[in-house]
Amino acid sequence: MLKELKIEVYEANMLLPQYSLVTFTWGNVSGIDRERGLLVIKPSGVEYDKLTPDDMVVVDIYGNKIEGEYNPSSDTATHVVLYNRFPEIGGVVHTHSPWATSWAQAGRDIPCYGTTHADYFYGSVPCVRNLAKEEIETAYEKNTGILIADEYARRELDYLATPAVLCKNHGPFTWGKDAHEAVHNAVVLEEVAKMAARCELIKPHVQLAPQELQDKHYYRKHGANAYYGQSK
Amino acid sequence: MLKELKIEVYEANMLLPQYSLVTFTWGNVSGIDRERGLLVIKPSGVEYDKLTPDDMVVVDIYGNKIEGEYNPSSDTATHVVLYNRFPEIGGVVHTHSPWATSWAQAGRDIPCYGTTHADYFYGSVPCVRNLAKEEIETAYEKNTGILIADEYARRELDYLATPAVLCKNHGPFTWGKDAHEAVHNAVVLEEVAKMAARCELIKPHVQLAPQELQDKHYYRKHGANAYYGQSK
Amino acid sequence: MLKELKIEVYEANMLLPQYSLVTFTWGNVSGIDRERGLLVIKPSGVEYDKLTPDDMVVVDIYGNKIEGEYNPSSDTATHVVLYNRFPEIGGVVHTHSPWATSWAQAGRDIPCYGTTHADYFYGSVPCVRNLAKEEIETAYEKNTGILIADEYARRELDYLATPAVLCKNHGPFTWGKDAHEAVHNAVVLEEVAKMAARCELIKPHVQLAPQELQDKHYYRKHGANAYYGQSK
Amino acid sequence: MLKELKIEVYEANMLLPQYSLVTFTWGNVSGIDRERGLLVIKPSGVEYDKLTPDDMVVVDIYGNKIEGEYNPSSDTATHVVLYNRFPEIGGVVHTHSPWATSWAQAGRDIPCYGTTHADYFYGSVPCVRNLAKEEIETAYEKNTGILIADEYARRELDYLATPAVLCKNHGPFTWGKDAHEAVHNAVVLEEVAKMAARCELIKPHVQLAPQELQDKHYYRKHGANAYYGQSK
Repeated sequence: MLKELKIEVYEANMLLPQYSLVTFTWGNVSGIDRERGLLVIKPSGVEYDKLTPDDMVVVDIYGNKIEGEYNPSSDTATHVVLYNRFPEIGGVVHTHSPWATSWAQAGRDIPCYGTTHADYFYGSVPCVRNLAKEEIETAYEKNTGILIADEYARRELDYLATPAVLCKNHGPFTWGKDAHEAVHNAVVLEEVAKMAARCELIKPHVQLAPQELQDKHYYRKHGANAYYGQSK
Repeated sequence: MLKELKIEVYEANMLLPQYSLVTFTWGNVSGIDRERGLLVIKPSGVEYDKLTPDDMVVVDIYGNKIEGEYNPSSDTATHVVLYNRFPEIGGVVHTHSPWATSWAQAGRDIPCYGTTHADYFYGSVPCVRNLAKEEIETAYEKNTGILIADEYARRELDYLATPAVLCKNHGPFTWGKDAHEAVHNAVVLEEVAKMAARCELIKPHVQLAPQELQDKHYYRKHGANAYYGQSK
Repeated sequence: MLKELKIEVYEANMLLPQYSLVTFTWGNVSGIDRERGLLVIKPSGVEYDKLTPDDMVVVDIYGNKIEGEYNPSSDTATHVVLYNRFPEIGGVVHTHSPWATSWAQAGRDIPCYGTTHADYFYGSVPCVRNLAKEEIETAYEKNTGILIADEYARRELDYLATPAVLCKNHGPFTWGKDAHEAVHNAVVLEEVAKMAARCELIKPHVQLAPQELQDKHYYRKHGANAYYGQSK
Repeated sequence: MLKELKIEVYEANMLLPQYSLVTFTWGNVSGIDRERGLLVIKPSGVEYDKLTPDDMVVVDIYGNKIEGEYNPSSDTATHVVLYNRFPEIGGVVHTHSPWATSWAQAGRDIPCYGTTHADYFYGSVPCVRNLAKEEIETAYEKNTGILIADEYARRELDYLATPAVLCKNHGPFTWGKDAHEAVHNAVVLEEVAKMAARCELIKPHVQLAPQELQDKHYYRKHGANAYYGQSK
């Protein structure tokens, strides 16, 4: 069942160690079949070099396991909420990639200091607050997803224009139109997080990139007037 | 003698250069056979690419060499004390891995800033004081082990819950249920040390991760109610 | 058409990922045939591992596409201006290499702190100002080139002696006598940017390298009295 | 002539890119045959992947070229002085390795913050002053060597106990009993420089490692009472 999606999600998961985004099993990728309302996700705690496409786990849109030998990722409930709240995404990634995680531990949004950032993420990459004790103890992973989606609503952020978030003292989630694009955004986030941290060391109290430059680069790659790349 | 343990300890030693934890011969792994009261440890100063399982040295629980062509690691006496004082561990690792060693040189505990840390180490990774001149001159390596174990007692730390320590101006030791898990913890320590240092650069005076988040992540992976990974 | 130049520019482009200067498609190299007044440049947004010499795009010295299946790099207009204003260069490179980009985001010239810098770049590597809103909105890429060349004129810099520039909040451009030398300079710039940032962390308020040392190293490698390397 | 030494020096040179100590041609290794008073050194500006043992250049103890197709390294005169002033060394290395060069640019000695340093270098790694304008213009490379040796005399340093030095605004030189050991020390220096810089970021105003700990580690590996490694 969902053979093609399993292969796609498997391949996207295997990109995480290839791009040096994970140590051991510290990351997971999922993809969704919107028509059937089914997610495919990495099994929990299985090492990447032992993974096969058949090990991918199928869960429904409520998070119930439908098929698979293994338990799904312990972060499955977060993925499920994101798919429900962000209806146009097709893939979700969670990692502990070191630079993005350092920003998450610092509890700071990543400011937009340049075009590398603006090419992919519109405005700051937001960092959501800690969950309250009760939120952690009742349904930690589910509440993580709710917190992310609520924060996008509260700040009036477009989840398609800013497909990356940091969870305070934890790490990043990214998403995209499919599992592969979500991984792509996870790679970009790590580069952007690295450059922003170094930029602040080189110039404390550095200013944001001018808004018109951010707009230029974002819309050079996205939307009706995009002209980066090859015409679709 | 102890053929399987020698292979296990040999393989664990070979993981150190693979994970970029050692330069030249700056590290050693041991494992113990608790029933026979015998340790297997890397020989001193032998290059990793020339090592074979048969080169591993067998010493008893008092540190006396029982078998082996080579001298055991110069740090053997530290390993011996740790096995005696921490009765449930099966493997010990010492490295000069760069980020953990930088914290050791700084003489600071590594604070718990996030879930990557909390997933493996409960609370701060402690940094023990310098040995006094007399302690260094009489039995340096043995006294290093005693200092570590005494510090865990003094701070009332659970050595199984915090299986990593820094020796001031020196470097880290880690341990685990066997040699392989001890190496695993050495890799985690290096990641955690890197992220904590960068986190403090990104946000000076950053606060610890909330205790309830630390508890959630630690107990998600450890103890009776753990649900990370596959059921055992 | 321009078969040899296409191969040369293709090979120079392929060096960018090899030297870890680009992530995904974040960079481009061009070369010029001065006699025919034609540039060869990477196509826009095509992944490096799918690139072939035949994919290179030919444009004229006004930026009009002359040959090629793909659209040329979105930065083509910048390259075109640089070739027109800097008549002795034969190759141009743009990347988002992380250390140079961090300096660009910081909006700072890279000071000459040592001989590694002085061996290749005479004086500081300049960082040009942001384009004004109007300059961005009318002809962003062309105006980027004009700004660079105007800044070299304003500061009375010799573009052959300082073949690298930073665009504020964006990233670096480098050039050279051909595409290969332009890539060589991009690699040097990244090393120099890294060392300068670390140098300032090791010693805040560090002074520039003495002028006579800068001169010695620059002229040891360049000009009539050069004696580095093998006689030409 | 000197066939074995050429192979040894060639192999030592090839270790520089392998250990990531050089970019392009930014480094050179030499070795000496003390009986014949002849040095073997890398040719100037030749790329490492094109080097062969036969390309190594032979010069005498006054720096005159005796044999070889190529010009010797432009730093040959520095090597020559070091061999003359430090009679017990057999190999010399110069690199622009990034961390050591960042300290050299900062113009600071590298303080001994831990046992990794103390295992190899007794006390601080010294940074010598800039050459005066006249010293640069008359015999730059020779005067670099004289300055290093004079500084060791002035500070009463033992060149065998501290086989590494930084030249201000330039980069490091290391040496050893042969070319291979000199490269070994260049690798150690880069590790030590990296850890010392990070250590200071983790704890500003950090103190030196206690003298008794430095002594313990240095003499555990060197001198009559050494017990690290296998008996000789």
